[in-house]
Amino acid sequence: MSDDPASLPSRAAIVGCGVIGAGWASRLHLRGVDISVSDPSPSAPEIFEEVTANAVAAWDALGVDTARRGSVTFAASLAEACEQAELVVESVPERLDIKHSTLAAIDAAAPEGAIIASSTSGFTPSELAEGVERAERLIVGHPFNPVYLLPLVEVVASPATTDEVIERAKAWYRGIGMHPLHVRREIPAHIADRFLEAVWREALWLVNDGVATTEEIDDAIRYGFGLRWAQMGLFETYRIAGGVGGMRHFIAQFGEALSWPWTKLMDTPELTEELIDTIADQSDAQSGHHSIRELERIRDRNLVGFLKVLEEHNWGAGQSMQALRDKAE
Amino acid sequence: MSDDPASLPSRAAIVGCGVIGAGWASRLHLRGVDISVSDPSPSAPEIFEEVTANAVAAWDALGVDTARRGSVTFAASLAEACEQAELVVESVPERLDIKHSTLAAIDAAAPEGAIIASSTSGFTPSELAEGVERAERLIVGHPFNPVYLLPLVEVVASPATTDEVIERAKAWYRGIGMHPLHVRREIPAHIADRFLEAVWREALWLVNDGVATTEEIDDAIRYGFGLRWAQMGLFETYRIAGGVGGMRHFIAQFGEALSWPWTKLMDTPELTEELIDTIADQSDAQSGHHSIRELERIRDRNLVGFLKVLEEHNWGAGQSMQALRDKAE
Repeated sequence: MSDDPASLPSRAAIVGCGVIGAGWASRLHLRGVDISVSDPSPSAPEIFEEVTANAVAAWDALGVDTARRGSVTFAASLAEACEQAELVVESVPERLDIKHSTLAAIDAAAPEGAIIASSTSGFTPSELAEGVERAERLIVGHPFNPVYLLPLVEVVASPATTDEVIERAKAWYRGIGMHPLHVRREIPAHIADRFLEAVWREALWLVNDGVATTEEIDDAIRYGFGLRWAQMGLFETYRIAGGVGGMRHFIAQFGEALSWPWTKLMDTPELTEELIDTIADQSDAQSGHHSIRELERIRDRNLVGFLKVLEEHNWGAGQSMQALRDKAE
Repeated sequence: MSDDPASLPSRAAIVGCGVIGAGWASRLHLRGVDISVSDPSPSAPEIFEEVTANAVAAWDALGVDTARRGSVTFAASLAEACEQAELVVESVPERLDIKHSTLAAIDAAAPEGAIIASSTSGFTPSELAEGVERAERLIVGHPFNPVYLLPLVEVVASPATTDEVIERAKAWYRGIGMHPLHVRREIPAHIADRFLEAVWREALWLVNDGVATTEEIDDAIRYGFGLRWAQMGLFETYRIAGGVGGMRHFIAQFGEALSWPWTKLMDTPELTEELIDTIADQSDAQSGHHSIRELERIRDRNLVGFLKVLEEHNWGAGQSMQALRDKAE
C-alpha cells in the first residue's frame, strides 16, 4: 500500500462544505492545493473559516508549516467549482437521492481525468454510481472528523472503478498526510462505521434501560479501552492478552463469550422522544459547561498531543505525519 | 463520586496471578501496599515479575515514584494469602464454577472487615455471590489490561452489598490512581465489555466474510475513531459533530442510520477451525515480527505518552494520575 509515492492533485473542488467538507478543504488547502468550494448554504463560508482556524491552530501546534496555502475560491455554482478540478470531493448530506443528483451533476461538470470521491459513511460506490456516466472514476473516500487531524480515509471502489483511479487517489491521500485504507469489498458503512454503529446501538440500550448515563458510558470508553485503541486495534491488543500463545490462545480463552447472553440486546431501540430527551439532557449535564467550540479545542489539543507521541515513536497514526512535514511538490 | 478521599488498604491478597492478577499486584505494591499472592500455577511468580517489570518501566517513564514498594509474599495457600488482608482481589479464570469455589474459600479465610473484589469481566456480583456467606462485602472491580496503566475499574454491587463497602473500595481504587466507575445496575459484562463484545462480533464477521484482514480492522480503529476515544467517548464526540445543535441535532441527523441494513450481521459467527486459523495467520502476518514482550513495551510506551498529554491538560484519564504522585499515607 505504501509503494506508490505521495503526490497532490493540482486543484480540488469541495462540493458540500459542512463540517466534513470544510475539513477536507482545510487539509487540502493547508497542504498547498488550490480549492474551489460549492455549497448553497449561506453558512458555508463561516463553517469553512471556523474549521480552517481550528486546522491552522492544530497544525501549528504540531509544528507543521501552514504558510504554503493554496488558493480558496467560493464558486457560484457546482459546475464552476468542478470545471478545473483534478479531484472532486463530495460531502453533501447522507441521503441517496441527494447523493445521486449531486454526483450526476459533478460527473457532467468535471474534466475527463478528474477523480470523484464521495465522503459517504454508509453507501457503497455501486449504490452511488447509479446515474453517474463515467463510474470508472468514482470512489468512496470516507474520512473521520476532525478531517484535518485524523489520518484515516476508507477508500472503496465499485467494480467499475479502474485501478489507476484507486492508486492515484491513494497517492493524493498520502500526499495530504492521510492513511488510505483500501477496503476490499463494498459493504454498507465500509468498516469503521460498522463498529461505531454497533457501539452506538449498545450505548442507546444502556441509556434507555437506565444502566448508565452518557457520561458514564464515555468514561467507560476513555479511561479504558479507548486509550488502547488510539495506538493498537482490537486484534493486536488481544494478541498481547493471549500472551505467548497469541491470538489462538486468546480465542480459545475468550471466544466462547460470543455465545453468552451479553449479546442479547441486538435489536434496535426505538428512538422515542423520551429517549432523545434523556440523551440530550444527560449530554448537557456532562458537557454543557463547555461550548462546542471549546470542546473542539480540547479535542484537537488532545489529538495533537497523541499524534506527537505516536510520531515520536513512528507508530500508528504518527506514521502519517511525515507527509505533512515534506515540502509541497 | 469524587467526594470521599483516596486511601489505601493496609494489606491486599491477590488470588489468581495471571496477567490481570499480576497487574493488580503491581499497581498495589508499587503504591506501597503489602501484598500476599496465591496462585497454584508454577508460572505465577514469573508472570508477577514480568508484569511488575513492565509496570516499573511505565511508572518510571511517567515520573512516578516506584521506590516506596510494599512487601510481596507468595503464600502457600489461598487461606494464608487472605488471612490478614483488608482487600482480596480475585482474578481466577472466567468460569462460574471456579469463581464460586474460589470466592467461597476467600469468604471463609478473609478477616471479617475485608472486602472481596472480583475481576470478572462477565458475571454479575449476584451470580458470584451464590455460596458466599457474607455477600455484603463482595463487589465486582473489573479492571482493564494493562492494569498498571489504564485507570478504569468498573465497580458493581449486588443488592446485598453495603454502601460502606462500595465507598471504601472506591476510595482505595482512587488511592492507587484508578477511576472507579460505579455501574448503576448489574448486567452481564457490565458496560465496557458489552462494547468490546459488539465490536469483536462485527470484526469476526468482517474477517469471516473476507471484507477485511485483522490488520485492516486494527488500522480502521487506530488511525480514526480510536484516537478520538482515548480522550472523549461516544457521546461527547457526537455532541461536537452535532455542532451548535448538540446531541439533539446529531440524533436527528444520524439516528435514522440505526434502522439501516448496517445492523444485519447481528447473529454470532461460528468459531470454526477455519476462521480461527484465518485470524491467527492474519495476526501473525500483522504483528508476528514483534514478540509479545516487544508489543507490550510498545503499547506501554504509547500509553505513557498519552497519559502524560492528558495529565498536562488535566483531562480524562490524565486526571487519575495525581493520586500516583501523592505521597503514600
